[in-house]
Amino acid sequence: AERIAIIGAMDSEIKILLSQMKDVKKEEKASVTFYKGKLENKDVVVFKSGIGKVNAAMSTTIAMEEYDVNKIIFTGVAGAINNNLNITDVVISDYLVQHDYDTTVFGTKKGAVPGSVDTKFSADETLIKIAKNSAEKVLGKNKIYIGTIATGDQFIADKATVQSLETTFGAWAVEMEGASVAHVANLYKVPVVVIRSMSDKADGSAHMNYNDFVTIAADNSAKIVMTMLTQM
Amino acid sequence: AERIAIIGAMDSEIKILLSQMKDVKKEEKASVTFYKGKLENKDVVVFKSGIGKVNAAMSTTIAMEEYDVNKIIFTGVAGAINNNLNITDVVISDYLVQHDYDTTVFGTKKGAVPGSVDTKFSADETLIKIAKNSAEKVLGKNKIYIGTIATGDQFIADKATVQSLETTFGAWAVEMEGASVAHVANLYKVPVVVIRSMSDKADGSAHMNYNDFVTIAADNSAKIVMTMLTQM
Ligand SMILES: N[C@@H](CCSC[C@H]1O[C@H](O)[C@H](O)[C@@H]1O)C(=O)O
Ligand SMILES: N[C@@H](CCSC[C@H]1O[C@H](O)[C@H](O)[C@@H]1O)C(=O)O
Repeated sequence: AERIAIIGAMDSEIKILLSQMKDVKKEEKASVTFYKGKLENKDVVVFKSGIGKVNAAMSTTIAMEEYDVNKIIFTGVAGAINNNLNITDVVISDYLVQHDYDTTVFGTKKGAVPGSVDTKFSADETLIKIAKNSAEKVLGKNKIYIGTIATGDQFIADKATVQSLETTFGAWAVEMEGASVAHVANLYKVPVVVIRSMSDKADGSAHMNYNDFVTIAADNSAKIVMTMLTQM
Repeated sequence: AERIAIIGAMDSEIKILLSQMKDVKKEEKASVTFYKGKLENKDVVVFKSGIGKVNAAMSTTIAMEEYDVNKIIFTGVAGAINNNLNITDVVISDYLVQHDYDTTVFGTKKGAVPGSVDTKFSADETLIKIAKNSAEKVLGKNKIYIGTIATGDQFIADKATVQSLETTFGAWAVEMEGASVAHVANLYKVPVVVIRSMSDKADGSAHMNYNDFVTIAADNSAKIVMTMLTQM
């Protein structure tokens, strides 16, 4: 049985998906509610991971162990880093990096997880293509970008950090779960992609913009996932 | 069936334990090798999580889902923060905190994981007592302390960070996995304790001291776990 895991960190990020699901079986494990069922006629398990790297790693691992998952899509909002991006634009991950990882005193690169092959975790090429086509259908070509997504257990809200994330990692967007999900997916050798619509610019006004745009951005990303499912 | 999970981040931290195990069944999941068997006549699963919060969360979750674990002990080395501590002394966790967690722009406290009840995760009182008694037997009373352990995805090697970890969190020691394991254990409502022997002082000489003392410190902690098992 093939099953696609669809993950958001917050209720707003999975709201549309849950409202469209059929044949739902709801199960709770370790305080996470898993919704098993059909979306666009595909077998899926949809869940809210909670915020941050540990919540994301734990819930993704439960999905892998308990729901026969063979593809993972993360959907949600992020802070824009690249200057080309406007709020509500979408970044699809080609690579993901844990920007807050630092064992550089041992000679590793910033972001590198000891024991991992590369500094960045890779998203799946086929899923990236499907995400891009779907995103262009939903929002139009000029709002869609493919790039590195940086993840850390910090909500970034200052220009200096934004600039260093761009310089150090070539990051296009910053959020709090994507690279953790990709890290787990890579260890399980399961294809993964992260889709993020921009809620803010991760700068001094990030907190205000986030509150204003989180719903629109979360819905943008979820609609892209719905369209992806029709193409899988 | 009751089974105790015993976790180290690195080979050196579980070496003594593996050498003493009986009836070992070895299984690999998501690149982690799980050793199921007996230690001091208790049912255990011993594994190397790998370094950092995501590796720790993933492997602990696999143990919870696949091995009927009802108690978790983490064993390893850490950087000393409190001035009372000498290298090779032991800190047993009463609380654990992810010091690199920061969503303070939303009004949360530094270290607080959104959605969690408290900023710190609690260790289990019974396991703390057994760990303390065992540690005193192995190393003598004057080398054993109970306190907050701070966890982050950074190897800390500067005095200023050490001081801020003490001021902000009242931390006694700093490492890279404990609070992630405790976070997962708390969500599963399974008792947990973290035992750490000091390999360094997390300051400018941390890297050199770490390399000199990691083996002695790792063995100290593993020997305490062996003694704990005789009392459980
Ligand atoms: N006001 C929220 C905190 C949002 S953290 C930011 C989230 O969106 C981000 O882009 C991250 O990926 C997080 O999941 C709360 O307190 O629940
Ligand atoms: N030289 C090592 C890096 C150690 S990171 C430090 C570890 O010990 C620490 O106290 C943490 O908890 C980590 O597990 C390596 O490159 O494998």
